[in-house]
Amino acid sequence: MNSFAFTCGDINGIGPEIVVKTLNKIKPSSKRKLIFLCPQKVFLKTINIVKPNFKFSIVKSLTQNLENGKVTILDIGSANQKYGKPSRESGKISYKAIIEACNLAKENKVDAIITAPISKVAFKKANINFPGHTELLTDFFNVKKYSMLFVSDKMKCGLITIHIPIKNVSKSLTAKKIKNTIDVIINSLKIDFKLKDPKISMLGLNPHAGEEGRIGDEEIKILNPILKEYQGRIVGPFVPDAYFGNKLFRNYDFTIGLYHDQILIPFKLLNFNKGVNFTAGLPIVRTSPDHGTAFDIAGKGIAIPDSMIESFKYAELILNNRKSSLERS
Amino acid sequence: MNSFAFTCGDINGIGPEIVVKTLNKIKPSSKRKLIFLCPQKVFLKTINIVKPNFKFSIVKSLTQNLENGKVTILDIGSANQKYGKPSRESGKISYKAIIEACNLAKENKVDAIITAPISKVAFKKANINFPGHTELLTDFFNVKKYSMLFVSDKMKCGLITIHIPIKNVSKSLTAKKIKNTIDVIINSLKIDFKLKDPKISMLGLNPHAGEEGRIGDEEIKILNPILKEYQGRIVGPFVPDAYFGNKLFRNYDFTIGLYHDQILIPFKLLNFNKGVNFTAGLPIVRTSPDHGTAFDIAGKGIAIPDSMIESFKYAELILNNRKSSLERS
Repeated sequence: MNSFAFTCGDINGIGPEIVVKTLNKIKPSSKRKLIFLCPQKVFLKTINIVKPNFKFSIVKSLTQNLENGKVTILDIGSANQKYGKPSRESGKISYKAIIEACNLAKENKVDAIITAPISKVAFKKANINFPGHTELLTDFFNVKKYSMLFVSDKMKCGLITIHIPIKNVSKSLTAKKIKNTIDVIINSLKIDFKLKDPKISMLGLNPHAGEEGRIGDEEIKILNPILKEYQGRIVGPFVPDAYFGNKLFRNYDFTIGLYHDQILIPFKLLNFNKGVNFTAGLPIVRTSPDHGTAFDIAGKGIAIPDSMIESFKYAELILNNRKSSLERS
Repeated sequence: MNSFAFTCGDINGIGPEIVVKTLNKIKPSSKRKLIFLCPQKVFLKTINIVKPNFKFSIVKSLTQNLENGKVTILDIGSANQKYGKPSRESGKISYKAIIEACNLAKENKVDAIITAPISKVAFKKANINFPGHTELLTDFFNVKKYSMLFVSDKMKCGLITIHIPIKNVSKSLTAKKIKNTIDVIINSLKIDFKLKDPKISMLGLNPHAGEEGRIGDEEIKILNPILKEYQGRIVGPFVPDAYFGNKLFRNYDFTIGLYHDQILIPFKLLNFNKGVNFTAGLPIVRTSPDHGTAFDIAGKGIAIPDSMIESFKYAELILNNRKSSLERS
């Protein structure tokens, strides 16, 4: 039996709506318990919009046994909901949902967390000093080596640098950072994705991958020595535009990029509404949709839950892979 | 009557093959004269592979009148051809084809030049110190303000910086450079693409377009003031990954990006084998395929000419638009 915790995300955005739509699609079963961490009032308002047909029970804590065949709504308190923009209250309650989910994970009451989108602006208004889920979760579980992966049926990929200015990318590409990330990725591909001998590629940093040093030297000075070290396991550095133009990503299980938009532009272009974020390196499984709070369409019932549904599917897949890996070892 | 000059490109690559395939597809007519600048021997070897069914006459110079209904092969001398890799000789003759085409354009004997791919390595071996067509052509025609555009039926776009290392992109984004490029683009969209009031968008530089200064400040310091100056004509700066993820480029006639792979990764991903380069700002029309010499498949008869065919189509379209613009004014 696997237990999945869904967080509500920012309640003024589409978070609760896409979670309810997802719960309605996947349904609880003998193999999966579904828990939704959300203020009771927000949940009731949401089902009034979505009109799902699953059975549920609302609880204040997970002390009692969860009822089979029902979705458990874990009421995490009350909060003023105002569709359309981030607030101090929406920031506070979205944070609370994550922390409670993490606590449940720590107590082994849930195996995986699927997080709905939060708002950084709301976090800031509530004086919560984490830029996003990843930083919060790695801090909570005290994990130093981790990596944010982007997964879909079309492409799996990851980044060496994430939310830093373009002008700082080159100097952030240290051998240590790159190798740490690679190690997390290789480990995750083996255990979480059950790939015994994953085929991995790495992109170059510069246009035409530097053209043998004529357009930047990071490929020669930083990437080539690392690729030599990982010979037989990682191929590259590839010319980035040609790599995607010739659809070479189809030949590899995983593509490693060096900066945010180098990977996220093609990933989102290919996976409109279907992309999933997965934090590799955490002791628990955590996935999330690759889109934001979509304040502009909140409360209208028109939000598309596809990426959230995919997030659940990958969480379940990864969880089962991890369990079967544990059984084998 | 429009006259189009095709250059052979690097004769050890797929250049001659894709030109012959293109000529065979488009055929000369009462509205278009087609001239192919290529060593006679290379041309004869190529038609032996491609087996085209167009009529041609081989000439040593364009002094005589061109025969109607026939493709004119302008023999530009002899060169040793060895499929598969760049050489001093292939560099020299590919350069000669471009220079002769430019001379013909200067003498008003051709209206547009469609260039097959050259090899920078071959150029270097032949001591030709231009990194590519664009630099050579703008030097030949003594043009200071120009822009390399990427066009296809799916998307039109351009770049502020081109072949420079990622670490130098930020400091290269001067207001003067950006505004010069924008002006060339707006002018080209009006005249070359007949768009009276083109809808143009501009991407941000940093992840999430800088998130109001939290991830880099170029959006605030450089881009926003320029966008204010061009208010009503250009919208932005857009969050790059969301822009492509949400297919927002479909809402605009033109997308301006700030560095090579920001534009060329999505452009090539979307336009596999169909992308066209167009140098805006030149006194003549010049287009080319967006791929390289493909030495690995040279001489095998399997090269796909689609991007070359598109290059011709856009050259003809732009030429006709320019002429009708001249007639109106």
